[in-house]
Amino acid sequence: MILVLAGGVGGAKLANGLAKILPPEDVLVAVNTGDDFVHLGLHISPDLDTVIYTLAGMNNPETGWGIAGETWNAMAMLERLGGETWFRLGDRDLATHIARTERLRKGQTLSEVTAEFCRAWGVRHRIVPMTDHEVATVLHTDEGLLSFQHYFVRRRCEPRVNRIDFVGAANAPPSPAFAAALADPRLRAVVFCPSNPYLSIQPILSLAGVRHALENLSAPVVAVSPLIGGAAVKGPAAKIMRELGNTPSTAEIARFYLNLVDGLVIDDRDHDLGPCIAAMGLRVCISDTLMNNVADQMQLAGKILDFISSIATSAPANTSPNSCSPPSSPVVSNPTSRGPR
Amino acid sequence: MILVLAGGVGGAKLANGLAKILPPEDVLVAVNTGDDFVHLGLHISPDLDTVIYTLAGMNNPETGWGIAGETWNAMAMLERLGGETWFRLGDRDLATHIARTERLRKGQTLSEVTAEFCRAWGVRHRIVPMTDHEVATVLHTDEGLLSFQHYFVRRRCEPRVNRIDFVGAANAPPSPAFAAALADPRLRAVVFCPSNPYLSIQPILSLAGVRHALENLSAPVVAVSPLIGGAAVKGPAAKIMRELGNTPSTAEIARFYLNLVDGLVIDDRDHDLGPCIAAMGLRVCISDTLMNNVADQMQLAGKILDFISSIATSAPANTSPNSCSPPSSPVVSNPTSRGPR
Repeated sequence: MILVLAGGVGGAKLANGLAKILPPEDVLVAVNTGDDFVHLGLHISPDLDTVIYTLAGMNNPETGWGIAGETWNAMAMLERLGGETWFRLGDRDLATHIARTERLRKGQTLSEVTAEFCRAWGVRHRIVPMTDHEVATVLHTDEGLLSFQHYFVRRRCEPRVNRIDFVGAANAPPSPAFAAALADPRLRAVVFCPSNPYLSIQPILSLAGVRHALENLSAPVVAVSPLIGGAAVKGPAAKIMRELGNTPSTAEIARFYLNLVDGLVIDDRDHDLGPCIAAMGLRVCISDTLMNNVADQMQLAGKILDFISSIATSAPANTSPNSCSPPSSPVVSNPTSRGPR
Repeated sequence: MILVLAGGVGGAKLANGLAKILPPEDVLVAVNTGDDFVHLGLHISPDLDTVIYTLAGMNNPETGWGIAGETWNAMAMLERLGGETWFRLGDRDLATHIARTERLRKGQTLSEVTAEFCRAWGVRHRIVPMTDHEVATVLHTDEGLLSFQHYFVRRRCEPRVNRIDFVGAANAPPSPAFAAALADPRLRAVVFCPSNPYLSIQPILSLAGVRHALENLSAPVVAVSPLIGGAAVKGPAAKIMRELGNTPSTAEIARFYLNLVDGLVIDDRDHDLGPCIAAMGLRVCISDTLMNNVADQMQLAGKILDFISSIATSAPANTSPNSCSPPSSPVVSNPTSRGPR
């Protein structure tokens, strides 16, 4: 079984690729809920919805969020009534939030609601929230404190970020299925999706016990860099990296994940960073990480599974070649990848 | 100024007719909110919405509720998710409830929210809730206690009704504008719309002080019978009348309103009940009360205004002819109309 840690769009794409090549029982996707918020009285779980909509084949590939072929009549009326419309909610999407809010109010957990929605939409691979507790990603910016969606959507990631907090995370246990997966001896690997490390993966890692569990895992842990040539495919990862005083680069992603992962999947276009990242002690897999369609998603997923196998089967010697890297790749593997720097 | 007491469809139609022939400052429509309920976490005010949508020209004339040209994508998705769909909410209509719920949660009164919605939709005639307090119409039936929408929509008025309560009404004051109108010396008349007397008008009359104010009003009070030939144009008025042990007839409507109104508008088809109703002490206006279109609404509204004038100007002698009744009508007017039987 592969445990997949995912944020929004990038996470959804890779999770979908894995779901296309692995049977349902072999995948568990634990999704960031630090972006969740109550808006217009509705409990909205943007990342969870993006992942589920994608695996259900309902997602809007153009926006990266919401449902394909969506209508916007509620939003148009809400605008006419002077309501808040900066967070776009399609008519069908709205029903998701209404149904979720109603069930949470009746005492169901977010895990239970998510499982019911997956069933209703025919999603057989397991998608679970990272936690059933409330965790809020809060950004300290030059415009003051901003909750995630206010920063990300309303303010279009424009404010300068000084610090990011995950309020409630330290006391929030992972959701039951996520916790069980972390403790499951059948766990074959953990994959960090090419989601924003600061905003999507970090909240998951900040949950009570998760970092510790990952650090002590015998199964391989691999991450996929969300940067290509120092730029994010989508979103503010590179911008935030700069604002936090770091150089936006896949090398910085490697440094960020260094003590947690055994290997890093980097893009072909970052090929020349391979040796540097390998020198940091990580296995490196070089691949086309840009996922423009389902075929791309499946191809990257396949590469990652090969990479995982190569890590799992390789001897703990620092000369073992990386099966995933092209022969010409100057990658040096290092078995002490998840130790301290 | 004319104060109009209205329930749903029939109320909306007559209020619209009056609004088409009177300037905005001359009409105040106080609408039943005993049907209001919280459903899917949303505060829904069905009668208020029907009246506002109608005066805004947005109403769906086929259903009698909701918005013309509505889409149903949220409802379809909600159904797929196993949510409650017995109360049909169109996509645009949903925005009304989301916006209302949000504003009530932020501390606005229903009167304030309603005024804002009217402004947003270009409705210049004043439409106000009967009260800003919570009042719930509850039906005692052979299936047990049912709140209004569960009886009316979910159970399609099928259960047999033994009793109707308006929970909270006795302690709920009328809304500020409604209360002000009742005390306004410029009040020219009060009109009870052809709404269900038991379910739509009675809750309004049950509010703290309203019945007393109406009984002591010097301005004429007139009601429009919702029955034609012993049958309701729409809804369960006749059925409930029977279940409560009365004969469904405009004569029974007259008896129901006897101590409150000076005159009753009855349909042409109930022409032969005129003498009976007049003998009960009420002025009678005979008119076509079926409103199939706006022209019908305006015609009935005009007749009612004439009827009001005739009551206001007639000497308190029991021989004054009713200006609204056709010359052939065997109607006898009676000046003691609002006294005890």
